[in-house]
Amino acid sequence: MSEVYAARRTRLREYCNAGGSAAALVSRPANVRYLAGAAPPGAVLLLGRTEERDLLVCAGPTADRPTQERPDEALPVQTLPGVGGDPAVAAAGIAAGQGADSLAVEEHHLTVTRHRALGSVAPRLRLAGLGSAVEQLRVVKDEEEISCLRIGAEIADQALGELLESILVGRTERHLALELERRLVDHGADGPAFPTSVATGPNAGRPGHRPTDRRVEEGDFLSVCLGATYRGYRCEIGRTFVIGTAPADWQIELYDLVFAAQRAGRESLVPGAACRDVDRAARQVLDSAGYTEGLTVLTGHGVGLEIDEDPQLSPAAMGKLDACVPVTVEPGVHLPGRGGVRIDDTLVVRPEADGGPELLTITTKELLAL
Amino acid sequence: MSEVYAARRTRLREYCNAGGSAAALVSRPANVRYLAGAAPPGAVLLLGRTEERDLLVCAGPTADRPTQERPDEALPVQTLPGVGGDPAVAAAGIAAGQGADSLAVEEHHLTVTRHRALGSVAPRLRLAGLGSAVEQLRVVKDEEEISCLRIGAEIADQALGELLESILVGRTERHLALELERRLVDHGADGPAFPTSVATGPNAGRPGHRPTDRRVEEGDFLSVCLGATYRGYRCEIGRTFVIGTAPADWQIELYDLVFAAQRAGRESLVPGAACRDVDRAARQVLDSAGYTEGLTVLTGHGVGLEIDEDPQLSPAAMGKLDACVPVTVEPGVHLPGRGGVRIDDTLVVRPEADGGPELLTITTKELLAL
Repeated sequence: MSEVYAARRTRLREYCNAGGSAAALVSRPANVRYLAGAAPPGAVLLLGRTEERDLLVCAGPTADRPTQERPDEALPVQTLPGVGGDPAVAAAGIAAGQGADSLAVEEHHLTVTRHRALGSVAPRLRLAGLGSAVEQLRVVKDEEEISCLRIGAEIADQALGELLESILVGRTERHLALELERRLVDHGADGPAFPTSVATGPNAGRPGHRPTDRRVEEGDFLSVCLGATYRGYRCEIGRTFVIGTAPADWQIELYDLVFAAQRAGRESLVPGAACRDVDRAARQVLDSAGYTEGLTVLTGHGVGLEIDEDPQLSPAAMGKLDACVPVTVEPGVHLPGRGGVRIDDTLVVRPEADGGPELLTITTKELLAL
Repeated sequence: MSEVYAARRTRLREYCNAGGSAAALVSRPANVRYLAGAAPPGAVLLLGRTEERDLLVCAGPTADRPTQERPDEALPVQTLPGVGGDPAVAAAGIAAGQGADSLAVEEHHLTVTRHRALGSVAPRLRLAGLGSAVEQLRVVKDEEEISCLRIGAEIADQALGELLESILVGRTERHLALELERRLVDHGADGPAFPTSVATGPNAGRPGHRPTDRRVEEGDFLSVCLGATYRGYRCEIGRTFVIGTAPADWQIELYDLVFAAQRAGRESLVPGAACRDVDRAARQVLDSAGYTEGLTVLTGHGVGLEIDEDPQLSPAAMGKLDACVPVTVEPGVHLPGRGGVRIDDTLVVRPEADGGPELLTITTKELLAL
């Protein structure tokens, strides 16, 4: 794996050299992990003018909490001897000491206070902006990364499948969410990819609903959204069910509509498609049925080391999809007081020649009455 | 409760006026919650020159995730109409529109990018630093806040007590941690106050250990650290046990030593005590027994809306303890390859006339063999 990380750092180095900065300081944890193989708490990556100068700077004993992941072995590590020091400040000092005259930093991650401390420790170092260069490198995944997402999706499918076999009526949203999270870990996840959402009755279909003490009742919609983290990679699946022997007509209608919107979104996932067109494909199905109010801003987003990454699938999104970009497609409708439906898959954009979009979350999307 | 939040805002307003800033922008979520009663995702508090101008600015539909807490009803709320907007930027615009010439902001929380956006939207507004003024207001708790911590501690005690009655040998750290978190929620916690730590055998006693798949074995030390969040307030308890019929001599010795250190720390919690003296009281017991290596930087810290607040109990800490400040006392020793002991309580500093420090986490600290 070491070559993978070195190659990623080389790409970033080329970007920085083109932008006129000899050195870069990467502080956002997911970015550090992407480039260094692991992100111990507080650690920053100093990217030097040449590979030999790359350095992972780790915090001292305070933050010395063991992580499961090990950094790239080819990357030198420096741990701060003192206590409470800021690895970013130390790294700026090291860069200045090596004669760098400018350092590109992640201004969207560093606070004003930390940025000022960097300037103080190395007053001759010009602090430039790295922008979201590393986030952009992270958008297209390699097969190793996709394989982690695939395993995570399998784990989430398993956890969800087991829950559906158990008795649901009378149990609270909170308990069902905890049970799902336990099952994720049972099946080998590092942990949940984000707080598991379980929503019943009038709560069903609310995006990002936090589980409450409401109990599942006959006739409810039940919507569930969960994901596993596997080797740092986070996937997402969402499904909506009906509790009881037979769904009501309005439930079937609403479900079919959201299902059609979600399918339209999935089917438009081809390399080269504009992100806003994927969003529009899903959104216009809901729009044309009169559900214009209360739609979420996004109908999907990238996933990877974070659960919400670029690209964004929204009306205002710029940019096009590339092959090997994993995204969610997750339209939904929520009717205040009545509940609603959300259907959410994680898929990888693939060329049609390779069979089109690869569905990672394979739990059925038929409307199940449980 | 509304008067409580208004009174907190008044205190901050007095501080800002004394510092020469007519308006302040509070963005750190725990600080927003402290002053406004709730912190919807992304929301910021704009503190005006007078109470009538205070305003909670909330993000638009993207972040519209229901929270259980409601903001202070006396506080006007403005929700951004658009999508993806930054409430902090909107608040700066509002302050400028109201004729404020300077705005104190939380430079330790705002990123460089956000700070720059504030400057762009209101170029005539001078951005000053609010420092950690709100964090300092939060240090001394009122009885309502302490009562939330007390209930949280009871919940943690219950969860831990139930775990001790179950069979432990053969179960993994990961499972025990999940079980504890489920029990916290069962007993009414909003959720865990921080990721529950369960450490067995050679892992026992490691601060902040993340649970692994190691199983509990006969003869192990087992150390557990958990806490409940109750109405936003976070407490912490840590205990170490021995698995099997009788502890080994080295285990008893090490346990007694850490217990003595923890007791020394607890007994030095009096109003007016220097934070570093409390740290020293605990630390010197371990030092004088030869355990100078591998001690943690802190032997305790404040708790409240965050699990790690001021004051810090460490050798370099400045400042003194006041009455009604809740802190942890949590010394420990970890012997590489063998394991170790941590004992951790949450207590409230109280004057001797009121009976001295109030212990919130009452699970026994005898060495139990389970």
